[in-house]
Amino acid sequence: MLTGNLLQKNLVDVVANLEHAIGRFVAWETYMRVDGKPTHTIWLNQDNPQVVQIIDQRDLPHRLVIEDLCSLQDTAQAIRDMHVRGAPLIGVTAAYGMYLAALNAPQDVSIDRYMIEAAEVLRATRPTAVNLTWALERQLSTIAGMADKDDVVAGLLDSAHGIKSLELEACETIGRHGVQLIEEIAVRKGGEVVNILTHCNAGWLACVDFGTATAPIYEAHRRGVAIHVWVDETRPRNQGARLTAWELGQEGVPHTVIVDNVGGHLMQHDLVDLVWVGSDRTTHTGDVANKIGTYLKALAAHDNGVPFYVALPTSTIDWEIDDGVAGIPIEQRGGEEVSSIRGLLGSEIQAVQLTPNDSSSVNYAFDVTPARLVTGLITELGVCKASCGAIHRLVHGS
Amino acid sequence: MLTGNLLQKNLVDVVANLEHAIGRFVAWETYMRVDGKPTHTIWLNQDNPQVVQIIDQRDLPHRLVIEDLCSLQDTAQAIRDMHVRGAPLIGVTAAYGMYLAALNAPQDVSIDRYMIEAAEVLRATRPTAVNLTWALERQLSTIAGMADKDDVVAGLLDSAHGIKSLELEACETIGRHGVQLIEEIAVRKGGEVVNILTHCNAGWLACVDFGTATAPIYEAHRRGVAIHVWVDETRPRNQGARLTAWELGQEGVPHTVIVDNVGGHLMQHDLVDLVWVGSDRTTHTGDVANKIGTYLKALAAHDNGVPFYVALPTSTIDWEIDDGVAGIPIEQRGGEEVSSIRGLLGSEIQAVQLTPNDSSSVNYAFDVTPARLVTGLITELGVCKASCGAIHRLVHGS
Repeated sequence: MLTGNLLQKNLVDVVANLEHAIGRFVAWETYMRVDGKPTHTIWLNQDNPQVVQIIDQRDLPHRLVIEDLCSLQDTAQAIRDMHVRGAPLIGVTAAYGMYLAALNAPQDVSIDRYMIEAAEVLRATRPTAVNLTWALERQLSTIAGMADKDDVVAGLLDSAHGIKSLELEACETIGRHGVQLIEEIAVRKGGEVVNILTHCNAGWLACVDFGTATAPIYEAHRRGVAIHVWVDETRPRNQGARLTAWELGQEGVPHTVIVDNVGGHLMQHDLVDLVWVGSDRTTHTGDVANKIGTYLKALAAHDNGVPFYVALPTSTIDWEIDDGVAGIPIEQRGGEEVSSIRGLLGSEIQAVQLTPNDSSSVNYAFDVTPARLVTGLITELGVCKASCGAIHRLVHGS
Repeated sequence: MLTGNLLQKNLVDVVANLEHAIGRFVAWETYMRVDGKPTHTIWLNQDNPQVVQIIDQRDLPHRLVIEDLCSLQDTAQAIRDMHVRGAPLIGVTAAYGMYLAALNAPQDVSIDRYMIEAAEVLRATRPTAVNLTWALERQLSTIAGMADKDDVVAGLLDSAHGIKSLELEACETIGRHGVQLIEEIAVRKGGEVVNILTHCNAGWLACVDFGTATAPIYEAHRRGVAIHVWVDETRPRNQGARLTAWELGQEGVPHTVIVDNVGGHLMQHDLVDLVWVGSDRTTHTGDVANKIGTYLKALAAHDNGVPFYVALPTSTIDWEIDDGVAGIPIEQRGGEEVSSIRGLLGSEIQAVQLTPNDSSSVNYAFDVTPARLVTGLITELGVCKASCGAIHRLVHGS
């Protein structure tokens, strides 16, 4: 049994060897750039593989903060308090959290029991994103039967890298599938600007690179298609105004921030060609849980004949629930996210109070858009209708 | 010709006599209370009838500011910069603005020509509320043919009081008509709480007293019906979170503030019995212009079988435009209302920046809900369907 510094040293070696061994992960190409520098949302600290680094997204767009995650607790807090958010990134972060948990597991407990408990801690952080459960189960099955802690640590890091890779590749592929829809509209409009409305942030900040809903947008922009994005600010946490606008700005994609109330009016006046959102959980029957307010945009799209597409990696599909509206658990967060808001005042980020002292608030984080309002799903496996048959055919071939 | 102080003295006398003469206006009962004190949104200064006083609504709910309007310019600015807002109150304020304009009219111009120009200044402040035009035309027709400035001043004050009275009475009557709908639902629910969702502020702060959409709510509350109001915060200017929540709190009506994205989710889960909004302009065919985002709530109500009612005085009806979506001019305001927001920080009201420096914003202030999504209109003349035939029958008897 290893203890103290020796243990730390040994694990560093294990990890370093592992990193070296799995050269494919070093070969990750990074597309998205922050101030011109290629950047992922999550990575292993180059100098200390016992530390996972993330962008703490809470201070964006005003400040870029890199945070060190050193433990299970750090990771759980980062997910729960939304330093990271977005279904794919939540899954990847949880996967690395399992690695950090194993790395710091007490010596006197059974590692397999400990990891099951660690998974429960992470699973409890956010209830809606199905990727969280998916990533945790994948991590647990990776280490099933392993008794040696070093093996567990190495296995979990390898698998976390693998999950990161999968999400990365899924987004890149979603981009290639989705861009065709944008190009078709561009051709139909004779090269006029294609206007895309998006809600919340289903960008690379919600994933690892590319994003889901943004992947086709970045791809279209790269191919020289004239596009413009209407960015819903997405109250209460303003992921649109803060994150999507910032991402698009970094990539030079023309965009305009609007309040969440505006989309219907724009669609009534032919100012939206396409609505494009991500998903935190999509039932195998095609119902889509996404950021609160998505359902209202889907209704407006339907009422005005505007195509409404959902971009998602298939890791976001829930194969159990048939009725999304009735069955998907909707997270309720603190009312203070409604009654106050953070923004830049001079050079400081400050929260200002919006409501009267005596008024209470409720804060549902997601809603469910029924499949009947969804024109199509764009996944890494291709585009399909939001129906049980089409989804099963796409993923299972039957 | 009167000049200088003598003119001022003379006008004060005229106004004082007039106030005395038209005793009916002194008899206004005031229902809404601020900290227990009966309060209107607009009134003539008791000690100096050359000054009109308003609540400057921009600092609510954090601070109650009373503002003096002394001139046409003061009034135009108060309407344009939304110290006052809400279609009925805009109309009443403009009516008093005409009085202030006449009071301060230069001696060397023709008073009738001057008043036409004054009306144009006021008309240009906000494009969507039809009450503005209605009140200005009523004021101009009041003084048609008058050549004597004193007569004009007296006539305009009398008429402004009359317009205020009309709006007051309309709201009170809307309350009596609308409360029946709430009581019916309360009976059907066996006394369970009736949940009403409202968007923006169609409360007494948008009118003079009672409010339009809130009048039935206050009346139901007074009658002891168990109600609860979901208050849309109503970005970008948060009239719901700031004004409606404050009003309801002052009257002790149970309420909860939500972001604008939430209403659809609530309706999907049977948490809304009734949607109830005001209107800035309703076409005689039943299309309803109201605060941006109203259309999205109407779509959700329709999709979930929730009744969607619009409360409005008939002064809000536009008898010219047939197609509201195509025809009603929609005001675009400054993007800074989107990119930043004001709120309380310590004891100061501060604006914080929400968006990246390089992202632009657009700001449509209203949208139009097509008549097909409106369950009914509640006016001072009664309740009717949102159809051309029903509206003409209600107002014109044919």
